[in-house]
Amino acid sequence: MNDTPRFKRVLIANRGEIALRIQRACRQLGLETVAVHSDADAESRHVREADIALCIGPASAARSYLDPDGLLLAARMTGATAIHPGYGFLSENADFADAVEAAGLTFIGPTGASIRMMGDKITAKRAMRDAGVPCVPGSDGPLPASMEEVHAVAREVGFPVIVKASGGGGGRGMRVVTDAADLTQAVTLTAKEAQQAFGNPTLYLERFMQKPRHIEIQVLCDTHGTALWLGARDCSLQRRHQKVLEEAPPPGIAPDVIAEIGERCAQACRRIGYRGAGTFEFLYEDGVFAFIEMNTRVQVEHPITEETTGIDIVAAQLRIAQGEALAIRQEDIQQRGHAIECRLNAEDPFTFIPSPGTITRWDLPGGPGVRVDTHVVSGYTVPPYYDSLIGKVISHGGSRDEAIARLRVALAEMRVEGVSTNIALHQDLLADPHFHEGGVDIHYLERWLAERTAS
Amino acid sequence: MNDTPRFKRVLIANRGEIALRIQRACRQLGLETVAVHSDADAESRHVREADIALCIGPASAARSYLDPDGLLLAARMTGATAIHPGYGFLSENADFADAVEAAGLTFIGPTGASIRMMGDKITAKRAMRDAGVPCVPGSDGPLPASMEEVHAVAREVGFPVIVKASGGGGGRGMRVVTDAADLTQAVTLTAKEAQQAFGNPTLYLERFMQKPRHIEIQVLCDTHGTALWLGARDCSLQRRHQKVLEEAPPPGIAPDVIAEIGERCAQACRRIGYRGAGTFEFLYEDGVFAFIEMNTRVQVEHPITEETTGIDIVAAQLRIAQGEALAIRQEDIQQRGHAIECRLNAEDPFTFIPSPGTITRWDLPGGPGVRVDTHVVSGYTVPPYYDSLIGKVISHGGSRDEAIARLRVALAEMRVEGVSTNIALHQDLLADPHFHEGGVDIHYLERWLAERTAS
Repeated sequence: MNDTPRFKRVLIANRGEIALRIQRACRQLGLETVAVHSDADAESRHVREADIALCIGPASAARSYLDPDGLLLAARMTGATAIHPGYGFLSENADFADAVEAAGLTFIGPTGASIRMMGDKITAKRAMRDAGVPCVPGSDGPLPASMEEVHAVAREVGFPVIVKASGGGGGRGMRVVTDAADLTQAVTLTAKEAQQAFGNPTLYLERFMQKPRHIEIQVLCDTHGTALWLGARDCSLQRRHQKVLEEAPPPGIAPDVIAEIGERCAQACRRIGYRGAGTFEFLYEDGVFAFIEMNTRVQVEHPITEETTGIDIVAAQLRIAQGEALAIRQEDIQQRGHAIECRLNAEDPFTFIPSPGTITRWDLPGGPGVRVDTHVVSGYTVPPYYDSLIGKVISHGGSRDEAIARLRVALAEMRVEGVSTNIALHQDLLADPHFHEGGVDIHYLERWLAERTAS
Repeated sequence: MNDTPRFKRVLIANRGEIALRIQRACRQLGLETVAVHSDADAESRHVREADIALCIGPASAARSYLDPDGLLLAARMTGATAIHPGYGFLSENADFADAVEAAGLTFIGPTGASIRMMGDKITAKRAMRDAGVPCVPGSDGPLPASMEEVHAVAREVGFPVIVKASGGGGGRGMRVVTDAADLTQAVTLTAKEAQQAFGNPTLYLERFMQKPRHIEIQVLCDTHGTALWLGARDCSLQRRHQKVLEEAPPPGIAPDVIAEIGERCAQACRRIGYRGAGTFEFLYEDGVFAFIEMNTRVQVEHPITEETTGIDIVAAQLRIAQGEALAIRQEDIQQRGHAIECRLNAEDPFTFIPSPGTITRWDLPGGPGVRVDTHVVSGYTVPPYYDSLIGKVISHGGSRDEAIARLRVALAEMRVEGVSTNIALHQDLLADPHFHEGGVDIHYLERWLAERTAS
C-alpha cells in the first residue's frame, strides 16, 4: 500500500456474503471497516465483525441498501472516506458513483462515466465494437421508429433475432423472434415493457444465437494505464438468466482462443480508460465470441478466478482505489488447475421457492481445494427481504475432474438444517454426464430441469 | 485409477481430523470408507460420514485405535481390503504394517521393513548417511559400554553434545551435555529412562546444535522407482517438542538450497526402495542440514505442502498403494506462494491445560486462501482421552505477508464457545515481530512463552 493511502476506513454498502468478503480484504490490508445494515440484518456476521456498524434503515432495500443519501450520511457519520458497493444494489448506479466522488470520497469501482457507458447496452456495444471487441451482428443502435425500417434491419441481420431493451439487463426486457411475421408485435410489446420497467422504451436488435455458451473475461485495471485480463469463466448453467454454477477455465476452449479475446478486452479497457475490476460477458458459439455486456463491479463468481490465478480480486480493487499500480504483469498471470463454484440458495431445490428462516445447523465442508464464502453461521436467520444466496462453495483442483470430485464430496459433507437449500440440485448437476463432458449451452439447465420435472 | 484397483474399500485406523481428511481423499477417488471408532468417538463426524462404521472398543486407545488385532478383525468384518493408518497410533508400527500385509490386505504406507529401519534412530541415521543425506556429527552407532570410550567419542564430536535413546522420539529420552564433567551422569540417567520408556537402553550421541531451525522435506514415492520431493516446511515453532505452527516454504532459505537437500532425500528414497509419503526431518543451522529422523507417514502439517504445490498428498498415498505410477515429474512441481498452518487445540492458551467438553459454537472462517481441516462441528464434544487437536487453520497467499494477513483475519473470524482454545496464542505469535522477520529457531517459542509469562 502507498505511504499516504487515500483512505483508511471503508464503508461497505452491501450485505450478505459479499459484505463479509470485502471486509476480509479490508482487514488483510489493514483498513478499518464500516458495516451498514438494515434492521433485518442487525445480527449478521459482517455487522458483528466490522470495526463500526451502523443501522441505516428498515428491511426494505429501497430505504437502506439502495438509499444513496443514507449511505453518504453514514460515511460522514462514521468517518469512512471510501465506499465499496459490492455487487447488486447501487454497485452499477453511475449517479451514486458520481455522488460519492462529489462528496470527496473514493468510490471503489470505475468512474460514473464508465458505469453509465456500460449501463446503456447500445452505447456499450458501440464502444466495445469500436475498441475491437467482437459483437454479435445487430441494429448497431436504437431501432428506427418506422416498423418498415425495423423489418429491413432484421432481414439484414438475419433471423432469428432478439429484441432487447437498451436499459434492460438480467434477462428482463428481451424477446426472441424467429419469424418476420412476429416482429411487429414483439417490438411493440417489448417497448411497452421497457418503458414500464426501465422508464426507457429504446430497443435494439441482434442476431439470436441459438445454443451459445456464456463465457466471461475478468479484467483488472489500475489508474496508471495497466489493464490485465485474468482468464475466462464459463457461466452457462443458468436458470431464468440467473447463474447457478460457474467454472474456470471454460472447458474445451483452447487457451490461445481465450488469450486472444482476453487481450482484446484489456485493450478496450485501456482505450476507454477503465478503472478497477470488471467483467466482459460474451455469448460463445461455433468458435465466435459476441459481446453482450460489461459488468462494472465484482461478480458473485469472482472466487473461481481467484482460485485459478492466485490473485485476490477484491484486495486488488482496494489497492487500485488507493491509487496503487498493479504489481503484476500479464505474462506473470498463470492459470493453475480448475475451479468450480456452486451458489447455495435458501430455496426449495425443485420448486425454487425461497426458504427464509433460521438455520439451526450449518456444518461446513473443508480440506484441500475447498473454499466457502458465506455470511451464515449456525443460528443465523435468512431474512425474506433479499435474494436467497446463503453462500458459495468453491472447489479447486489440478484438473476439472479433481475439482468436480472435490465439490461433490464437499457438498455431501454439508449439513444444513432449518431451511431448504439447492444442494441437492447441485449434486445432481455435478453427477450429470453432459456436465461432465463440459461445454453445455445457456439453455441446458432449463431443458434439464424440464426433463427432471417431467420424469 | 487402475482398471483393476487392489482395493475398493479402505479402513481408516484413526480418528479426528485426519480420519476425515483420509475419508475425503477416498471419496474423491471413488473408494468406500470404513470408520472404526472407540465408544468415545461414536458421534464423531468421520463416523457419521463413513460408508460403514464400526465400534472397536472403549475410549482407551490401547483397546481401540492401538489394538492391531481389533483393527484386522474390523477389516475382515467390513470387507475392507486396505488400511490407512493416518498419523500417530499405529501409523509407524512396523509389526502392524507387516500384520496387515500378512493378512492379505494393503497397508497404505511404506513396508514394515522401511518403518522398522526408520524407527531405530541409529539404523535410520546410518542408512541416510550412506544414502548421501547429511547428518549431524555423532557417535555413528550405539555408545560404547565403557564410559571412558563414551568420553572419547564426545570429545571427538565436540561439546555440547546431546545423548539420545535409540528407541526414542517426540522429544523423549534425550539430554544435552555442555560440559564433559556432566557426561557420565547424563548417560546413566538417559539409559535408565530409555529402558523404562522404550524397553531399550541403547543410546547414541550427537553434536548439539544450539539454535537450529526444524526444516523438513516431504517426499512421495511410488512402486515404479519414482521418488519426488515436494518442497520444504519450517516447523521450528514448537513447545515441548510439539509443533504449534508450520509454514512452507521456510523463510530465508534459497530455493536452490532446498532443491539440493530435496534431491538428496529423493535419491535416498530410491536407494532404500521407499514407498508412499514420508518426511525427512532436519535441524538446520548456519546453512547446514543435519538429518534427525524420517517420519514414515502423513504429517499433521501436510496441508501447507498441498497448498503450495497443488498436490493432494493423501490422494497420492492412496494411488501409490493401488500400484499406480506417480503422474507428475519433479520438474512439474512448482511452489506457488506461501502457506501457514495453525494447530488448534482445545486447551488453555496460557497454561496449555487441555480443555475437553462440548463445543457449543463453532463458526469457521472462509474466503480466499483459507482452508480448515477439522472433524469438529457445532455441538461436538471433545473427549478427554486423546490429544487436544480440534482442527487446523491453513492460509495460503501469494507472499508470506499475504499468508500471515489472511491467517490473522481468519483466526479473528473464528468463534468457539464451550471449550478454551489456543487461538489467542496463535494470534499473538502471528503478530510477533521476530516471527514476521522469519527464521526463528526451535527454542524461540519456549523463550517467548517464558517472557510472556514473566511480563
